[in-house]
Amino acid sequence: MNELKNKTCEPCSDGLDPMPSGEINKLLELIPEWEVTTEDGISRLQRTFSFKDFKSAITFTNLVGELAEVEQHHPKLVTEWGKVTVIWWTHSVNGLHMNDFTMAGKTSKLKAD
Amino acid sequence: MNELKNKTCEPCSDGLDPMPSGEINKLLELIPEWEVTTEDGISRLQRTFSFKDFKSAITFTNLVGELAEVEQHHPKLVTEWGKVTVIWWTHSVNGLHMNDFTMAGKTSKLKAD
Repeated sequence: MNELKNKTCEPCSDGLDPMPSGEINKLLELIPEWEVTTEDGISRLQRTFSFKDFKSAITFTNLVGELAEVEQHHPKLVTEWGKVTVIWWTHSVNGLHMNDFTMAGKTSKLKAD
Repeated sequence: MNELKNKTCEPCSDGLDPMPSGEINKLLELIPEWEVTTEDGISRLQRTFSFKDFKSAITFTNLVGELAEVEQHHPKLVTEWGKVTVIWWTHSVNGLHMNDFTMAGKTSKLKAD
């Protein structure tokens, strides 16, 4: 995961193709806690983080939100009592880009810190 | 909506029945921006609020989170770039309770303020 968490996001232009599945599977080995989900036909990286209560979940939501603002790459964050589900994908490629794996690695590091 | 936004949540005990649909429809008239959705067979109150960017969405997520902590009744909050979807239901009745309508009214007021 160290390879991912120290990267920064690169600018994405429209019209790029999403990452091929072979490359996705290879990168997933670096972040085994994450899974690929599909919603509206778009592949996404998803992980649910557990917390002791609602307040701790909101605190984590804010940490991920700050990271998103720094990198200018924004996830979907589902905050509930005791858990936060973080979902990364890249709008401009309608799927997964290297940036999403970078952000997943950085998100996991936020929980580990 | 004034009837709802000034109420406070009452304690819920397990084993209560969810609200009958006739009562739900009557209360929905007080908060017409909200809709009843069903997930995992459980009725919920849902509304999506729009914002100009991700930061404003996170700020609203925090406002709803603070309200939830005050009332000790906690929603599911889906935060994305430019929008927050707020979903209220009551675990102990496996459906909707008067408290959810109260919280929906209070949530709408947070956006209106």
